[in-house]
Amino acid sequence: MAQHRVTLAEVARRAGVSRTTASYVLNGLGKDMRIAEDARSRVLRAAQELDYRPNLMARSLKTKVTHTLALVSDTIVTEQYAGRLVHGALAAAVRQGRLAYLVEGEGEPAAEQRLLEDLLDRQVDGFVYARMFTRPVRLPAGLAGQRRVLLNCYTEDGREPSVLPDELEAGRAAARAVVAAGLQDGAYLVGERAPHVFAGRQRLAGIEEVLAGAGARLAGEAPCAWWPESAREAVAGLLAEGVRPRALVCLNDRVALGAYQAVHAAGLAIPDDVSVVSFDDSELAAWLDPPLTSVALPHFAMGQRAVERLLAGDTEGTERVPMPLRVRASLAGGAARG
Amino acid sequence: MAQHRVTLAEVARRAGVSRTTASYVLNGLGKDMRIAEDARSRVLRAAQELDYRPNLMARSLKTKVTHTLALVSDTIVTEQYAGRLVHGALAAAVRQGRLAYLVEGEGEPAAEQRLLEDLLDRQVDGFVYARMFTRPVRLPAGLAGQRRVLLNCYTEDGREPSVLPDELEAGRAAARAVVAAGLQDGAYLVGERAPHVFAGRQRLAGIEEVLAGAGARLAGEAPCAWWPESAREAVAGLLAEGVRPRALVCLNDRVALGAYQAVHAAGLAIPDDVSVVSFDDSELAAWLDPPLTSVALPHFAMGQRAVERLLAGDTEGTERVPMPLRVRASLAGGAARG
Repeated sequence: MAQHRVTLAEVARRAGVSRTTASYVLNGLGKDMRIAEDARSRVLRAAQELDYRPNLMARSLKTKVTHTLALVSDTIVTEQYAGRLVHGALAAAVRQGRLAYLVEGEGEPAAEQRLLEDLLDRQVDGFVYARMFTRPVRLPAGLAGQRRVLLNCYTEDGREPSVLPDELEAGRAAARAVVAAGLQDGAYLVGERAPHVFAGRQRLAGIEEVLAGAGARLAGEAPCAWWPESAREAVAGLLAEGVRPRALVCLNDRVALGAYQAVHAAGLAIPDDVSVVSFDDSELAAWLDPPLTSVALPHFAMGQRAVERLLAGDTEGTERVPMPLRVRASLAGGAARG
Repeated sequence: MAQHRVTLAEVARRAGVSRTTASYVLNGLGKDMRIAEDARSRVLRAAQELDYRPNLMARSLKTKVTHTLALVSDTIVTEQYAGRLVHGALAAAVRQGRLAYLVEGEGEPAAEQRLLEDLLDRQVDGFVYARMFTRPVRLPAGLAGQRRVLLNCYTEDGREPSVLPDELEAGRAAARAVVAAGLQDGAYLVGERAPHVFAGRQRLAGIEEVLAGAGARLAGEAPCAWWPESAREAVAGLLAEGVRPRALVCLNDRVALGAYQAVHAAGLAIPDDVSVVSFDDSELAAWLDPPLTSVALPHFAMGQRAVERLLAGDTEGTERVPMPLRVRASLAGGAARG
């Protein structure tokens, strides 16, 4: 696979803005430069869609690195996407002349507290407090008086500055794609109704809202845990009952992998017999046969925004980062549109 | 999937040693405590096979964190496994009372040099210089007088202290599994003969050595790039010519995914018609249907060893970290042995 590095010019072209505008936005200077919110959001989307990775180092050469910040997470190995959260945060930090400590607290309060004290001893300028799966947290006592932004987590009272993926809109986007393909009357959910899981709850709410708006609702469900094996069994069970879904809306790509396995084992074809849409846009999505339509987790942009907000002193409110729909051949009519 | 956290006691039991011995080894005190090399290596293998994750924080509470080290990598997002290298390094650092800076130099010499200077200004105690894919590097000038260990990279002259995956032995392990299943006379390679790629070169050397020892050699090859789509085409081509391999030896799990797709599309069954073995043991391996036999990259252990060696002043020579074979149902007779 060609490892073409996407340039700033390509991002600007796709977003329909000048290179200067794209550069301001991607350097977190959009607000200072009075770039319209619409243009800013188009640039961020284009950067995600093209998987644009800024050349951090060329930029850092212009700026002496004189301060430090700390990225405090539970653990970066729970999740293969986690690297992108960290990478986005480091990118924004170096660009603004900061070195970053990376600390894993594993979510244990006493231990986290101790590490926070050690970091404070070192006069860290601010904290990005992160979780690898989106979830509610309690703010550690040690962060109370400190400059901080929460990344991929939030407090139940909603008072902490926080950067989250826009999962509700992601659910809507997936359902809109199903409706656009005319499949809204045979759409089945594959996954778990888990109201305590942020991603699951919001994705489902978005899906149901858009289906309702189109005069439809989910035709049924294949309930399963968020893993391929469980999804494979659930979808195989559905097909064995003689159900023939027109579309499977999978709550993540792992679940979609299991759904693919069950559909293929039943001798059915994707998308000719059944379409599949999913969430996360992990590497897996592009590797499946046929490639999987998926709504992308914007982890790089989230890490970046958390650090930008921290350093800009923009520490009020929740920012929801857009999750772009990546249309691929698993959706009827999808290849043409992808 | 149950998220059971493996305990120290389970690691000790599997390794056939006492908890105390396992604890010394996993805390990097094996040499200080005169633990035999054989026991040390059994503990490290057991920890990898069980995916043991030490509880860093409980340990760090016993030790005041008073020093810092720096982990300088190219970029942690190139690769989904990269998180484990970083996690292993952080685990070892915190356990020995160090906080870690994480810096991504993207492999650009001038930029790296500048970041190294910034880190030296902060009196960092030592450097772990890492690459996310195993490869040769030039030592940055800024590291010349510094305490350092190279992680997942090496200099061509072999003079730098370095921690590498034992890819040669991994190749042997994969081929031994093929021979043990009696499939040595119909084994095809799926992947690219790329002598400049460390993993590919060493894996292939190990495979060919063991096959030769068994009086066999590769029956043929499906040459392809290290990606699913390329492997799918290559294996489909082989099958279309009427070739019926008894085993496909895939140079990594992505390639194995493509091989699975081609085998299934041809209406053949794994492992009844053809066995598959692979390398990396990414998450994908366990998710495939049937689950894939794969030789695991030991990234957590590698990260850990690099920091342990740095802090112990053990900065001579190359350490090759064992890569355990994970036997699963893709190999004829494999499920029984897994």
